[in-house]
Amino acid sequence: MTITTTLPLEQRIAADPRNFRVLTGDRPTGPLHLGHYFGTLRNRVELQRRGVEMFVIVADYQVLTDRDVADRLVETVDGLLLDYLAAGLDPEHATVFAHSAVPALNQLLLPFLSLVSVPELQRNPTVKDEIAHSRQSSVSGLMFTYPVHQAADILFCKGNLVPVGQDQMPHVEVTRTVARRFNERYGPVFPVPEGLLSIAPVLAGTDGRKMSKSRGNAIALSATADETARLIRSATTDADRHITYDPERRPGVSGLVHLAALCLDRDPHEVAAEIGDAGAAALKRTVSEAVNEFLAPMRERRAAYAKDRGLVRDVLRRGNARANAIADQTLREVREAMGTVY
Amino acid sequence: MTITTTLPLEQRIAADPRNFRVLTGDRPTGPLHLGHYFGTLRNRVELQRRGVEMFVIVADYQVLTDRDVADRLVETVDGLLLDYLAAGLDPEHATVFAHSAVPALNQLLLPFLSLVSVPELQRNPTVKDEIAHSRQSSVSGLMFTYPVHQAADILFCKGNLVPVGQDQMPHVEVTRTVARRFNERYGPVFPVPEGLLSIAPVLAGTDGRKMSKSRGNAIALSATADETARLIRSATTDADRHITYDPERRPGVSGLVHLAALCLDRDPHEVAAEIGDAGAAALKRTVSEAVNEFLAPMRERRAAYAKDRGLVRDVLRRGNARANAIADQTLREVREAMGTVY
Repeated sequence: MTITTTLPLEQRIAADPRNFRVLTGDRPTGPLHLGHYFGTLRNRVELQRRGVEMFVIVADYQVLTDRDVADRLVETVDGLLLDYLAAGLDPEHATVFAHSAVPALNQLLLPFLSLVSVPELQRNPTVKDEIAHSRQSSVSGLMFTYPVHQAADILFCKGNLVPVGQDQMPHVEVTRTVARRFNERYGPVFPVPEGLLSIAPVLAGTDGRKMSKSRGNAIALSATADETARLIRSATTDADRHITYDPERRPGVSGLVHLAALCLDRDPHEVAAEIGDAGAAALKRTVSEAVNEFLAPMRERRAAYAKDRGLVRDVLRRGNARANAIADQTLREVREAMGTVY
Repeated sequence: MTITTTLPLEQRIAADPRNFRVLTGDRPTGPLHLGHYFGTLRNRVELQRRGVEMFVIVADYQVLTDRDVADRLVETVDGLLLDYLAAGLDPEHATVFAHSAVPALNQLLLPFLSLVSVPELQRNPTVKDEIAHSRQSSVSGLMFTYPVHQAADILFCKGNLVPVGQDQMPHVEVTRTVARRFNERYGPVFPVPEGLLSIAPVLAGTDGRKMSKSRGNAIALSATADETARLIRSATTDADRHITYDPERRPGVSGLVHLAALCLDRDPHEVAAEIGDAGAAALKRTVSEAVNEFLAPMRERRAAYAKDRGLVRDVLRRGNARANAIADQTLREVREAMGTVY
């Protein structure tokens, strides 16, 4: 079970997955890695398997919230699409679309901004945190209004289920506030979405620290078997030949054990015990094999799609078209409700 | 001459009006009155006469910047359109469109917000002032980001000339900043618009204070001749039978003299001297006649258009269609420049 949350919501999803529409997505800032897979992608594929309809936003404008220019977006987006398809997102069931390609979605920002006060925006803890880690010298208007864009991203398709980590709960709270206030003021147009809290395992990279592209310790979903083996061979371990799972005291070794365990869907203590005194080299061979076997079907799917970039682009084009049709319809309802149809 | 500004811009407009595209407009908050006419509408008609292309935005979303709900917008917008047509805006030369009807225009808000910092938004004196006079208990996100919407309103059609009162100059400055930064960062897409400073006469209402709908002292462009005469008969004057033009010491009488003078295109001192000792009743007769004669051709045009509301709506529909075609084209250029065409 990869999704944990309050039981009632889980039960409601199980009882009738067709009552739910998920909005999720990523900022196209680079290749996805195993940390993303076990953190979010796996949950998405699982929700898809359970029959929940899914909208996946490629949040290209949000790349600009904490940096000035988004470089090589076309290439990054292409890679992201391949990552999605490789990971098992099925374009027949998941609508993948680009934020910048859906004007009617973006228009929702204006009425929504009228429903949220500046003090409310200033108080948002996630924005506060993102501001603290921003690469920019001062906070941009785009960063400041970010939770309101997210409300538009979720509500344009009447998404009612938003998979989130604990730190994103305040964003969903803004969306819920916007939906509630809009409905009170203008009439019932939007669902009040629920956050589906997913407790994602924090995956260590090859240096024992949290896996992250910028640390150079990440195994990308697009890495070849050789690249993967090489990365794992270069991983940090320690002087103790006996392999144990002890994340607190042995982060390097335990990170590798954890990675193998996730790929093998086994308990990390068991995995460690099996290797025992065979030492770091044996551990690394086990991890390499486990990761490469785990990634093999993804690599196969990726290779198939990569042969036909037109097909990949077409996934986005069809997703954009569907998102636009839905956004246009929602905007029509919003304009009706607000009395701005002349 | 109703437009005063730095000479070079005036000379450039005179030399080739076709180099300029004006963006101007109004919030649909109620009927326009003579204060609006002499303040802005007259300038627009004059610019139109001179061959400058014009886009007129019905800024319906901006009604929400300082109040919670926009009431009876359809009716108000209908009235505004009639006011425009009555005042002499020619839909063959002026594109009248609704803010809420042009999604691609509104999408520009997102990239533009990334170009402006929160401290810059906080410093804007016009927003500060509008916040101080807001009807809302706290500042909404829509009010806070208002100068950036205005940048989108102006730049979507590549407007390069914006008629402004002195107090709106800071807004145009934000638009100029946004245009400059966008062009620097992504390549030349936008003109850097110029503010056309128009020194509008402050028109007194029938109580000697500034003409304003909320004070009940305004002569609406849509008022009948009888309503107009009645309003003027009820105007505040003073005990001095001798009529003079002395705005400082005799605001009531001088406001009426000024109104007559504007409608007659004469000097207010002359108008006052002609009435002389004939007193307030004679002054009011003169004002009534002058205003009614002045409004007569507008009433005629209004009556003609009012007969066919379909025609009026069609002006807006055609304006919306034209604005959308232009906004779509501009957004395409913006997406190309930003590298978000996938």
